[in-house]
Amino acid sequence: MKIYKYPNNDTWKTLSERPVIKQNTLDEIVSGILYEVKSSKDKAIKNLTKRFDGITIENLKVSRSEIENAESLVCTDLKNAITVAKSNIETFHLTQNTNEAISETMEGIQCWRKNIGIEKVGLYIPGGSAPLFSTVLMLGIPAIIAECKEIVLCSPPDKNGKINPAILYAANLIGISKIFKVGGAQAIAAMAYGTETIPQVYKIFGPGNQFVTKAKELVQQSGIAIDMPAGPSEVLIIADNTGNPEFIAADLLSQAEHGADSQVILISDNEDIINQTSKALEKQLSELPRKEIATKALENSRSILLENLESCFEFSNTYAPEHLILASDNGEQFISSITNAGSVFIGNYSCESAGDYASGTNHTLPTNGFAKNYSGVSVDSFVKKITFQKLTAKGISNIGPAIEIMAEAEELYAHKNAVTLRLKSLQNV
Amino acid sequence: MKIYKYPNNDTWKTLSERPVIKQNTLDEIVSGILYEVKSSKDKAIKNLTKRFDGITIENLKVSRSEIENAESLVCTDLKNAITVAKSNIETFHLTQNTNEAISETMEGIQCWRKNIGIEKVGLYIPGGSAPLFSTVLMLGIPAIIAECKEIVLCSPPDKNGKINPAILYAANLIGISKIFKVGGAQAIAAMAYGTETIPQVYKIFGPGNQFVTKAKELVQQSGIAIDMPAGPSEVLIIADNTGNPEFIAADLLSQAEHGADSQVILISDNEDIINQTSKALEKQLSELPRKEIATKALENSRSILLENLESCFEFSNTYAPEHLILASDNGEQFISSITNAGSVFIGNYSCESAGDYASGTNHTLPTNGFAKNYSGVSVDSFVKKITFQKLTAKGISNIGPAIEIMAEAEELYAHKNAVTLRLKSLQNV
Repeated sequence: MKIYKYPNNDTWKTLSERPVIKQNTLDEIVSGILYEVKSSKDKAIKNLTKRFDGITIENLKVSRSEIENAESLVCTDLKNAITVAKSNIETFHLTQNTNEAISETMEGIQCWRKNIGIEKVGLYIPGGSAPLFSTVLMLGIPAIIAECKEIVLCSPPDKNGKINPAILYAANLIGISKIFKVGGAQAIAAMAYGTETIPQVYKIFGPGNQFVTKAKELVQQSGIAIDMPAGPSEVLIIADNTGNPEFIAADLLSQAEHGADSQVILISDNEDIINQTSKALEKQLSELPRKEIATKALENSRSILLENLESCFEFSNTYAPEHLILASDNGEQFISSITNAGSVFIGNYSCESAGDYASGTNHTLPTNGFAKNYSGVSVDSFVKKITFQKLTAKGISNIGPAIEIMAEAEELYAHKNAVTLRLKSLQNV
Repeated sequence: MKIYKYPNNDTWKTLSERPVIKQNTLDEIVSGILYEVKSSKDKAIKNLTKRFDGITIENLKVSRSEIENAESLVCTDLKNAITVAKSNIETFHLTQNTNEAISETMEGIQCWRKNIGIEKVGLYIPGGSAPLFSTVLMLGIPAIIAECKEIVLCSPPDKNGKINPAILYAANLIGISKIFKVGGAQAIAAMAYGTETIPQVYKIFGPGNQFVTKAKELVQQSGIAIDMPAGPSEVLIIADNTGNPEFIAADLLSQAEHGADSQVILISDNEDIINQTSKALEKQLSELPRKEIATKALENSRSILLENLESCFEFSNTYAPEHLILASDNGEQFISSITNAGSVFIGNYSCESAGDYASGTNHTLPTNGFAKNYSGVSVDSFVKKITFQKLTAKGISNIGPAIEIMAEAEELYAHKNAVTLRLKSLQNV
């Protein structure tokens, strides 16, 4: 992790750059997979699963008995922990389920919005070495709260043709039962176009490797909504002299272990904190099972010493981190300085792991600087807000003349006429 | 407008199809424009404006005196009408500016969200024959309410190098002063990449022709957010025997006059209403200045007779209209049947023109079936919702053990260690 001392403001843009990912060659491969699934549906899914996952799957849909068996395969401690996380995530996400009041903009004109769950949504849960059951909770709970009618979950099968029981347990616990054994770009294609077995959805959520990300990007161009653009995970920590170097190092590493392309940034106005964190980092790193991955991530990473905390927040807003940790006893007083961030962790006891798993906030967040223009996943992501209006005779009488003038000025005479006819009919009453 | 009587459910998907727009050839042209602006900035903008708008522009930025002069060029009636619309749009959009309560998910764990306006946003206002000052209000007012710090507005200059005074007046009235004389794909490019004169923004809003739409689609792929995917405008009207055929015809035409590619759909369980509307349509059409455009749009359009109102709503949800008008005295009783629509107009006095201009709701809505997965523009579109969390020592003690178990199950040991270190430090106190 390279240390930069008092870098000039001119260099901040460069210091905010993420590791570059080459993915031009992906376009052709992923387009091919999408085309194959669109044309041959289930047959294509089975062929691709054999090709990429090395397993022949007869029944793409996870059976009721597989779901029920999962419960006995997950240890009680983990089941209890998942239940705690579920409860907190539900509590926080329920606060997002707001209904706005009806607004009477003029006498006789009522306007309001109604939240309606997107009817069909798809959740992608990556496979690989670690079963991301936490992502099942983070995507599934807001989908359930939003009352999406059809929730489809896809996750790649392992070498035995199974999905990890913790994933099945978490899905079943929150009420998701349409689970399919398919991963990669072919899973995104299946949910975008539908197959004989896997239902088509209107919006697709979830993290994934570069094939999954590219597939989401491509299906978005054909009208399927996606949660947000993707990029490698990242954390930025702002520490003052009340920060704890051991905790800071642990938080940096818990981001760095996500992947070799992760990025971690430490900013401080205090040189001692930076130096002590470097030492703690080295020690903790040596004891880490995913040491190799974390070491690679640290190569993309930076410690930056700045003049004062104001500059630290200015840099952070330029960087727009996915996760922002305020390693300070006085974190709360800086909230108003934060303009660009996905999720903020205030104080020395608010570690990123808390939000990643169980405190209640969502862990699906904008990376790669997208915190400048995107929000993390929430109940909002799973609803459409439909506007309604009702005008009475009094209402159209009040507003009609203004509409007539504006429509005429925009040279839209049929728009005007729709009002004129109504106003005339009222004169005749 | 072709009439379909009791079409079989199998044909609904076909009946919901929008007119197809060929735009494959656009890719190359628009990519070229984007590249030119990215490379040569203001110089490119001026060249492209000369090429496409036929005018040489010295100062891309509209001057303070041009903005002030606009006020004297707009007639008092229109100024008053715009003021009424502004007030209603503000009243309704202010109801969207909600702040959620802090949620204590467990003792010592507080989670909340804070709305922060996207720092830099760009509004595109098309030119052409009609000056769309109404769109200035519809995009500008929520941007102001969201407290976006930098609001950039681009609109093409006319043959005299001017922007229509009604557009300048509306912009100034709501407090927007960074206005630039540039249209088409080059305007989108300018806002996406920034030039010497035109600031770069993080999210771009607004309607436009196929060049603008394609440019928005392309810049989205490089990380600039856009309001929503675009398509031709459309209305679907559900009428029962209490609907007024004259009003229905006027509403259909006010959509049809938007463009030759607009689509209008009438659905009813009552054959008389359909027949009477057809007659009224013919008569009103003959008197319309934009008759030619509306006639073309009616060629893409359909009247559909169905067995009952339940089927009408089912069809409408399949179609997912941008605008849905319930031409009925009993419209309110069907609200719960609506799952897919952009904006709903309830009852015989709620014409689409009301929402297009002045009732208070937004007129930037999802077209082309996107009402299945997108919402219209609102204050939400201009904010990011950042999550915050604060854990106390008590909070991490409560939740820590669950996080440790989950992190270990996902094989993320640095995540676990970030908690373990904190729990240990508390044992030592």
